Amino acid sequence: MRVKNQPKSTSQNIPMKQFHSMKDAFIHELRDIYDAEKQLLKALPEMEKKAASPDLKAAFREHCEQTEEQVRRLEQCFEKLGEKASATSCKAMKGIIAEGEDLLKQKDSGDILDAALIGAAQKAEHYEIATYGTLAEWAKGLGETAVKDLLGKTLSEEEETDELLTKLARGGINRMAKSAA
Amino acid sequence: MRVKNQPKSTSQNIPMKQFHSMKDAFIHELRDIYDAEKQLLKALPEMEKKAASPDLKAAFREHCEQTEEQVRRLEQCFEKLGEKASATSCKAMKGIIAEGEDLLKQKDSGDILDAALIGAAQKAEHYEIATYGTLAEWAKGLGETAVKDLLGKTLSEEEETDELLTKLARGGINRMAKSAA
Repeated sequence: MRVKNQPKSTSQNIPMKQFHSMKDAFIHELRDIYDAEKQLLKALPEMEKKAASPDLKAAFREHCEQTEEQVRRLEQCFEKLGEKASATSCKAMKGIIAEGEDLLKQKDSGDILDAALIGAAQKAEHYEIATYGTLAEWAKGLGETAVKDLLGKTLSEEEETDELLTKLARGGINRMAKSAA
Repeated sequence: MRVKNQPKSTSQNIPMKQFHSMKDAFIHELRDIYDAEKQLLKALPEMEKKAASPDLKAAFREHCEQTEEQVRRLEQCFEKLGEKASATSCKAMKGIIAEGEDLLKQKDSGDILDAALIGAAQKAEHYEIATYGTLAEWAKGLGETAVKDLLGKTLSEEEETDELLTKLARGGINRMAKSAA
C-alpha cells in the first residue's frame, strides 16, 4: 500500500558519487534497484505477450503486478531514510533486458522460446536476489530495521518467483522443448 | 585439465540465430556464458587490486583461478557437443561489469568500498548461478549427461563463491563499513 506523504519519485538519473559513508553506498544501491525494477516493469508485459504457455503468461503477469508493489516498497525505503526516491541507471538490468529483447525477436513462439524466456527471467530474478540480499544485509548493519524488513519482504518474493520459474521449466516446458527439438 | 584435441576457441562473436531446436537455444546460452566468463577473467584482477581486505583480495584471486578452469570446462562442453567453442557478446555481464568499474573509480579503498565490491561480485555470481542452472537443466533434458556434469560442477562452485562472499560480508566487512560511516 502506498504510504501517505510519500516523496514523489524523480526521473532524474543520479550518477554514482564518492561514498563518504556506508549510507552513501546504500542509497546508491537503492537507486540502482529502483531503476532496475522500473525497467522490468516495462519488459515483463512484452515477455507475457510472447510466451506460449498459459502458466508462463500468468507467471509473468503476476510478477509484473508484484513488481509494481516492489517499486512502491522502494519508495517507502527512500522515505524512511529521508531521501527523495530517485534512480541511477542500472546498466546490469539494461544488459539483462537487452538479452531478453533479443529473444523476443525470435520468429516463432512456442515451447523452445518459453524455455529460453524462463532462463532470461531467472537472470533478472537473480540480479534482484543478489541486490536485495546485499541491501537487506546493509540495512541491518545500519540499524535501519524497518527498511530491512521492507527489503527482506521483496527478497523473499524474488526467491519465490525464481522457484516458481524453475518449477514451470521442470514441470513440462523443458521436456516439451526437448520433444520439439 | 585441458582435454586433448580440444577445438580451438574463436574470438568470433556470433549473434543469436533463429532457434530451430532446443539444442540451438542451448548452444546460444553456452556461447553467452563463455563470453561472460571471459569478461569476468579480465575484471577480477582489477577488483582484487582495489580491495583492501586481504581475505577479499584472496577470494577474488582464487575465484579468478577458478574462472580459468570454468572457461576450460565450457570448452569441453562445446567439444562434447561437436561445436567449436565460440562466444556471443554477453550484454548482461557487460552491464554488471560496467557497474563494478564505476565502483573502481571511487577514490578511496577501504571497508566501505570492500562491502560494495562484494555486492558487485555477488551480482556477477548470481548471473552465473541463473545461467548455469538453466544450462544444467537443459543438458539433462537433452540427455547430455557428461555436459550436465561439467555444468553442474561449475554451478556448485559459483554457489560456493557466493556463500563465501556473504560470509566475508557478514564476518566483518559490513560491520567495519558501518563503523567507518
